[in-house]
Amino acid sequence: MQSAPSKPYNAINFSQKFGLFTEQWQPKVVAELNDYQFKIARLEGDFVWHDHPETDEAFIVLDGELRIDFRDGSVTIKPGEMYVVPKGVEHKPYAEREVRLMMIEPRGVVNTGREGGARTAQNDVWV
Amino acid sequence: MQSAPSKPYNAINFSQKFGLFTEQWQPKVVAELNDYQFKIARLEGDFVWHDHPETDEAFIVLDGELRIDFRDGSVTIKPGEMYVVPKGVEHKPYAEREVRLMMIEPRGVVNTGREGGARTAQNDVWV
Repeated sequence: MQSAPSKPYNAINFSQKFGLFTEQWQPKVVAELNDYQFKIARLEGDFVWHDHPETDEAFIVLDGELRIDFRDGSVTIKPGEMYVVPKGVEHKPYAEREVRLMMIEPRGVVNTGREGGARTAQNDVWV
Repeated sequence: MQSAPSKPYNAINFSQKFGLFTEQWQPKVVAELNDYQFKIARLEGDFVWHDHPETDEAFIVLDGELRIDFRDGSVTIKPGEMYVVPKGVEHKPYAEREVRLMMIEPRGVVNTGREGGARTAQNDVWV
């Protein structure tokens, strides 16, 4: 008689994943949920103003502090906190020191939205 | 001349939200992303075997330890870790001591999936 099967399933560990890259502003996919992706990124300094006309965008801060500027104010997000930027709302992420965070959004969303330009990262890169 | 407007935007703080309820196995919505919901919950002990035939289901552990049993194995998820249970896969959450976690799934997903029964929580309750 065989013992119960015990197939190894592994959780996704954020610290382990961050240990695999150092570049900033280059989101890396760590998981998918239906047609949505969980992406981790290191951000530092200023980004470009942009919006995503088709989708909301969720930010969960894991380490450090992220400020998201809006045209009429800003929000500061710390570890253990999240924020959802509504679709079509112009925003500009900023971090005085490097912040580690996770973004959740549909597969195919580009980091610079419809703004594009030099800061556009390669999309759908897994780590 | 007026100074720049500074509308107050507030991040969602998980600890603050957990301070607002103590009941277990009753997921509470803290944010929406398009038609998806972020729900936090306190779990302890054993749940029922169930699956969600229509959707994957993401678990992010915030405090404590969650085990998810599958018919052929299990995964243990600790703080700073996540796991996505694929749609249609039978699973049973278990926590030896209370675990605080976040689930991400489409609006309308019921905690017991197509299994139903006494452990079915009220859906779409915000905190």
